[in-house]
Amino acid sequence: MKTIMLICDGMADRPMPELGNRTPLELAKKPNMDELARRGICGLMDTIAPGVPPGSDTAHLALLGYDPQEVYTGRGPFEAAGAGIDLRAGDIALRANFATVDDKLIVKDRRAGRIQDTGQLAAAIGRIKLPGVRVIFKSTVGHRAALVLRGRGLSHEVTDSDPHELGSKVLQIKPLSREAAKTARLLNELSRRAHQVLKAHPANLERAKGGMLPANYLLLRGAGVIPHLEPLHERFKLRGACIAAAALVKGVCRMAGMTIVDVPGATGGLDTNLNAKCDATLRALESNELALLHVKGFDEASHDGNAAAKVQFIERVDDMLGSLVGAADFITIAVDHTTPVGVREHTGDPVPVLIAGPGVRADDVRAYDERSCARGGLGRIRGKDLLPTLADLMGKGRKFGA
Amino acid sequence: MKTIMLICDGMADRPMPELGNRTPLELAKKPNMDELARRGICGLMDTIAPGVPPGSDTAHLALLGYDPQEVYTGRGPFEAAGAGIDLRAGDIALRANFATVDDKLIVKDRRAGRIQDTGQLAAAIGRIKLPGVRVIFKSTVGHRAALVLRGRGLSHEVTDSDPHELGSKVLQIKPLSREAAKTARLLNELSRRAHQVLKAHPANLERAKGGMLPANYLLLRGAGVIPHLEPLHERFKLRGACIAAAALVKGVCRMAGMTIVDVPGATGGLDTNLNAKCDATLRALESNELALLHVKGFDEASHDGNAAAKVQFIERVDDMLGSLVGAADFITIAVDHTTPVGVREHTGDPVPVLIAGPGVRADDVRAYDERSCARGGLGRIRGKDLLPTLADLMGKGRKFGA
Repeated sequence: MKTIMLICDGMADRPMPELGNRTPLELAKKPNMDELARRGICGLMDTIAPGVPPGSDTAHLALLGYDPQEVYTGRGPFEAAGAGIDLRAGDIALRANFATVDDKLIVKDRRAGRIQDTGQLAAAIGRIKLPGVRVIFKSTVGHRAALVLRGRGLSHEVTDSDPHELGSKVLQIKPLSREAAKTARLLNELSRRAHQVLKAHPANLERAKGGMLPANYLLLRGAGVIPHLEPLHERFKLRGACIAAAALVKGVCRMAGMTIVDVPGATGGLDTNLNAKCDATLRALESNELALLHVKGFDEASHDGNAAAKVQFIERVDDMLGSLVGAADFITIAVDHTTPVGVREHTGDPVPVLIAGPGVRADDVRAYDERSCARGGLGRIRGKDLLPTLADLMGKGRKFGA
Repeated sequence: MKTIMLICDGMADRPMPELGNRTPLELAKKPNMDELARRGICGLMDTIAPGVPPGSDTAHLALLGYDPQEVYTGRGPFEAAGAGIDLRAGDIALRANFATVDDKLIVKDRRAGRIQDTGQLAAAIGRIKLPGVRVIFKSTVGHRAALVLRGRGLSHEVTDSDPHELGSKVLQIKPLSREAAKTARLLNELSRRAHQVLKAHPANLERAKGGMLPANYLLLRGAGVIPHLEPLHERFKLRGACIAAAALVKGVCRMAGMTIVDVPGATGGLDTNLNAKCDATLRALESNELALLHVKGFDEASHDGNAAAKVQFIERVDDMLGSLVGAADFITIAVDHTTPVGVREHTGDPVPVLIAGPGVRADDVRAYDERSCARGGLGRIRGKDLLPTLADLMGKGRKFGA
C-alpha cells in the first residue's frame, strides 16, 4: 500500500467579500481535488487546537503524528535538522541570522543585505571553541543558519539575542531557569566571539569594499532541545520520503526518519517547479510507502495579500494532482494551517482534509474546500490524528490493548 | 475589534413531549438569535466533556479559555473571588453557609432561616486568630459567605463540614492527604471557635428574641486552592468586562483579570432587569474588547420545571439581543450547560454555540437551537476552545511554533 500526502501550505482561507463571500479554494476550478472529495472521506482538522495559529514546524510535527505540545520546545531543532545537521536527542539548537550591526551593536539589517554566500563565514564560526561543549554551525539559504550546542548540563530555556526589529540593540541572552544559566553564558560568549571573528573576516572586508553590508553578527532565536521522535518506519512501519523546499518542513521530516528528496527548481514559492516536484514524488513512491509532497506557494500569495495569485496557484496544483491520481493507493490532501489573504498571517481556523483510497467510508462531500469538508464523514479531527488514521487504513494501525 | 459574548445559563434543553418533542429553544420565537445563526457559524459545544454536567464555575472557566481539569480544585476560590476578596495564588478558599444547629450540632436549617444581614456576624468571624495563618472572611448574599486561609503549608485536600442534609450532625473536617492534616486541624478549630462566637453574638440573641433561627454555625464546603490564571489581557490581549449577577460567574471573571460591572436590578433570576444589563454591556464595550453578558433566568425556570417560563424568558432575551446586534464586530452566543426542564438539574448534553462577525465561514444553519447547530460548520468543540477561536477571529490568536 502506498500513499501520497499532499500538504498545501496555507491554502485554507476565510470567505472574502471581494470573492463574493467565497474563499479562494471555493472559487478555484480544481476538478481533481473535487473528484477526490467525491471518492473519499472529508473533514475539518485543527492542526494544533481550535483557534491556535500553527507554525510550519508544529503543524508538520502534528501531520506526522506527533503531539507538538509534547515534543516542541522551539524552532531551532527543526532549522538545524533542515540544514542537514546530524542531531542527537538532548542537543540544544537555535536559529541564527547573519545580520549587520554597528559599533554600538545596534541592528542595521537583520539579513545583512540579503547576503547569499555565507559558506566561509559559517566555517569560521564552526571553528570557535567553547569550554565543555561542541559547537556545530551550518548555514542554509541566504542569511539563514542553524547553531547546535552539544554537551552536558545544557538547557533550551534561554531568551533570544535577536531583538526582532531594526534600530534596536542586540539582546543579552538570559536564562529562563536556573538550569539554563550555563547555556546562556556560553551563548553570550559565542555571540561575542562570533562578532570578533566576523568583523575581521576577509569575506566581510570584501563586502565592505563593494559597498555591501557586512554580515558581522549572529542573531540567535528559537532555542529548543532535540526531542526523541519515534521514526515513522518504527511507529507505523512506513518508509517515508519528503519532497519539500521549506527548511523547517524538511527538518521535521528528517527528524521523523524520512528520506529528504532534494528537487532542483523547488523554491517554496509561487515560481516553484511543480512538474519537478511531481516527478520526484512519483520516483519516491518506488521505494517508500509514504510520499509527503509539500507545496508552499499558497502561503506566499496569502502573505502578499494576493487572492488572484492564490486562486491561480490552487488551479496549477490541481492540474499537477492529475498526474498523481492513480500513482498510489491512497491520496490524502491536507493543509497545515489557514493563511487568510485578508489577514496575511497564519490563523487558527480549521483546515479541510480528505483521504481517498480503498476502504474509506466515502461521504457525500462533492468539493474539497473549507465549508464543504465541514460536513464530511471525518468530522473535526486534530492534526496528530491524521497519520494514525491513514496508517490504519493502510493496514498499519497500532493496536492498543489486547 | 469588539465582541459581545452572551452566555445563556442553562438555556439548552432536551426535546419535551409536552412541547411536541421540541426543546424550549426550538419552540421559542427568537428572530435575533436565528438571524445571527444565518449570518454566523454554528456548532455544538461540550463545555467540559461529553456527558459531564458542568458546574457554573467550571463552565465559565472553560468559556474563558482555561482548562477546568487543570485549574479547578473546588468552588471555594470562585466564591471568594466573587465575594470580592483579594486573593493570592496558593490561598485556600471555602464556601461557607451561615446555618442553624442545635446543642448536639445537628443541622436544623442550612440557611439559618434565610438570614439576610450577616455583616456583623461576618466581622466577628474575621477577628478570629489562628496560629500561623491569616483568616479572611466575607459574607455575600443571604446566608452565603467565603472563607480564605492564607499561610504556609496549607492544602485544599480536605472534606466538607457541611453534611448537605437537614437532621444530620455537622461533620469533622478530615484531611484527604498527609499534607492536609494541618489545614483540617485549623478548619476544625476555626469551626469550633466560630460556633462559640456566633452563639453568643448579640445579633443572634436579637434574632432569638424575634423568634428567628440563629446563625450559629458555619458550614464549610468546596475547599480549593487559588490557581494562577493567566489574565485574558495577557493571554489574548483582550480587556474584558463581566456583566453578571451570579457570584460564581463574577468570581471566575475576576480571577481572569476582567472588570466586574455591578448592575442594579441584575438578580440572576427571571425578574432580572435585562434592559439594565443590556445598557451596562454597551457601556462596557467603550473601554473593553470583550463584554461577557451572563443571563441566568433560563436556569431558574429549568430548576423550577417551568417550560412556559423558560420559553418566555428566551423570547425576552432575544428581544434584548436586538439592541446589541451591531454594537460589536462579533457576537457569540453560548450556553454554559444544559438544564432540562424535565430533569431540573444540569446535564452533560452539548450546547449550541454560534459566532457571527467578519471573516467567519458562515454555514447554512438557519436557527440557533440544539439540533440545528449540530449541523453547523464549527462541528463539535470543547468549551475551552471557544475563546481561542474567537480571539483568533479578532486577530489575537496566539501562534504556536515558527
